[in-house]
Amino acid sequence: MRTALTDLVGIEQPILLAPMGHVSGGRLAAAVSDAGGLGLIGAGYGDADWLHREFQRAGRARIGIGFITWALARNPSLLDLALDYAPEAVMFSFGDYTPFLNQVRAAGAKVICQVQTLAQAQDAAAAGVDLIVAQGTEGGGHGGERSTLSLVPAVVDAVAPTPVIAAGGIADGRGLAAAHMLGAAGALIGTRFFASKEALGSTNAKHVIVKSRGDATLRTRVFDIVRDYAWPIHITGRVPLNRFAAQWHGREAGLSADLTRQRAIYRRAEQRGDTDTIVVFAGEAVDLIDTIEPAARIVERITREADDLVGASSLTKQ
Amino acid sequence: MRTALTDLVGIEQPILLAPMGHVSGGRLAAAVSDAGGLGLIGAGYGDADWLHREFQRAGRARIGIGFITWALARNPSLLDLALDYAPEAVMFSFGDYTPFLNQVRAAGAKVICQVQTLAQAQDAAAAGVDLIVAQGTEGGGHGGERSTLSLVPAVVDAVAPTPVIAAGGIADGRGLAAAHMLGAAGALIGTRFFASKEALGSTNAKHVIVKSRGDATLRTRVFDIVRDYAWPIHITGRVPLNRFAAQWHGREAGLSADLTRQRAIYRRAEQRGDTDTIVVFAGEAVDLIDTIEPAARIVERITREADDLVGASSLTKQ
Repeated sequence: MRTALTDLVGIEQPILLAPMGHVSGGRLAAAVSDAGGLGLIGAGYGDADWLHREFQRAGRARIGIGFITWALARNPSLLDLALDYAPEAVMFSFGDYTPFLNQVRAAGAKVICQVQTLAQAQDAAAAGVDLIVAQGTEGGGHGGERSTLSLVPAVVDAVAPTPVIAAGGIADGRGLAAAHMLGAAGALIGTRFFASKEALGSTNAKHVIVKSRGDATLRTRVFDIVRDYAWPIHITGRVPLNRFAAQWHGREAGLSADLTRQRAIYRRAEQRGDTDTIVVFAGEAVDLIDTIEPAARIVERITREADDLVGASSLTKQ
Repeated sequence: MRTALTDLVGIEQPILLAPMGHVSGGRLAAAVSDAGGLGLIGAGYGDADWLHREFQRAGRARIGIGFITWALARNPSLLDLALDYAPEAVMFSFGDYTPFLNQVRAAGAKVICQVQTLAQAQDAAAAGVDLIVAQGTEGGGHGGERSTLSLVPAVVDAVAPTPVIAAGGIADGRGLAAAHMLGAAGALIGTRFFASKEALGSTNAKHVIVKSRGDATLRTRVFDIVRDYAWPIHITGRVPLNRFAAQWHGREAGLSADLTRQRAIYRRAEQRGDTDTIVVFAGEAVDLIDTIEPAARIVERITREADDLVGASSLTKQ
C-alpha cells in the first residue's frame, strides 16, 4: 500500500503506532516498524531514564517518537535526548510545537503534528510540518471533541498538499480503508496496539481493552486530576468506564476537594494494578478488539483487510 | 451503486434523506427520491395538518417518513395518517418503536430503526427491523455520543445480516465511500440536504450551515429546554454555536430558572428568524458544505464521487 505517508517516511504500510505514554515502548515501536509501519515511542510526561531504555529496546529498528508538547516544554532536554537516537520522525501533540521545529528539522527527522481541530490543522500547515495527524474524539486517551469521519476530509481540503493521517476509532482494515476514502494517507492507531503482546502495560489493562464495549467509554478529566497532570482544559482522556470514573466524572469539584485521600486510594490501586480504579486509556473501537496479539499480526491483518477493500489500483491514486 | 439498501428499498443510489423535522418536507423528500435515493419526510414533534400537506407536496414520488418515536407515542394516530400515504419505509428514532412494528409491516412498509449505541442496534436486530441506521455523534440535530467511524463496523458485525446505514458526518462522496468501507450499505444524510433549495427552513438557516465551521458545533440541551421538548436525557442536539447556546450551554439550571423570560425572547427571535438566538441544527460536516443547491445535484455529486473512489467492482461486494 503506497501513499504519501509511505513515500514520505520510507515505510511499506500506511500505519503509524500512536505514541501512547507507558504503552508504546521500544519493543512495540520496533515491532510495528518491522512489520512495515512506523512505530512511535510515547514520551509521555517525560522521564529521561525511561526514554533511554526504550530507545535501546527498539534496537536497530527505524522508529520515531511522540511528545506531549506541553510536557516537553517543561523539560526540553528530552528532545535532545531523543534526537541523539536519530528518530525518523518526531510527533507533537497538545501544545505549542513551534519552538522545537528547527531543532527537529536540523536533525533530519520528519515533523508530525497531531491536531484536534481544523483551525489547529491550518496552523500546522502554515508552520510547515511534514505530516498532520487529524485526531478524532473517538480515539483513546487524550483528545478533543471533533470526530474523525468529518474532521479528516475537512483537514485534507484545508492543508493540501500536506499529507494527513487519520487517528481515532481505527482498529481494523475497514477503518484504514475508510480513512483512505476520506483522503487520509494512512492511519495512526493506538488502542488496537495497546492490546498487543509487545505493548507495555499490564495484562490486566490489556484485558480491559478486550472486554470493554464502545458504548461504555467516555471522555473525562478525573484521572488527570487524581494523577496531578495539568492538561489543557479542552483536552480530556477517553477511557472505558470503571468504578473510579463512575464515582467522580461530573463531580470533579468533589474529587478536587477530597484529593489527598483520593490520591492515596489511587496510588494503592496502582500498586495492585486494580483497573476498577486506575485508568486504562482506550477508544471507542474496543468493540473491534477481541484478542491480545503480536503487533506484526495486527499490522498484517489491518493492511490486508484494507487492501482487499480498497483494491490496489484505487490505492495508488493518492 | 448497488447495495443491500438499494436492493431492499428498490432505489438506485444508497442515500437516505434524514427525516429532519421542519426541514425534510415533501418537496425535499421527493427531490431526493427522484434523484435515485429515498427521501424521508421528517414528522418532527407531530402535526397532522403539516404531515398531510407535506405528503401531498411529495406528489407521486416514492418516499418514506421518519418519526421521533417518543413524540409519536404521544400521538400514535400520526402513524395511521402516514401509512395512508403508503410510504416505502417508516423510520423510528429515539424511543420504543416496538409497539408500532406490526402496524408498519402490515401496511407493507419497511421498518428502519435509527440507533445511537451498539446495544440499541442489537435490540433492533432482535426486533427484526429491516434496516438499522447507526448514527454517530458528529451528525446534526439530536443524537448520542458514539462516533460514526467506530460505531458502524461494530454494529455491522453485531447485527449481520441486517443491513446497516451510516449516519453522522457524511456530506460528500468521501463520506459515502468511507461508510461503504466500514461495511455500511449506504448513508443517511441530513445537514448536507438542509442546505438545499428544496429544504424547508429559512434562507437564513441555510446560510448558517454554509458559513459555520465544524470546530464550532456542540451538542447541547439548551434549545430543547427553551422550546419545551422532553428529550431523553442522553440525547442532545448538535448545533453550530450561536449567541443563545454560548449564553446558556453549561448553565442549564440558570436557563430553567429564567424560563418564562427566555421563552419570550426565543419566540420573538423565531418571528424575526434571528439565528443568533434560534436553533439551526447542523453537524460537524458543515466544513464540507459551501453552497445551497438543488437536492438532485447533491445526490448526483455524492454518488459520483463515491463511485469514483470506491470503483464499481468493489461496490458490488456487499
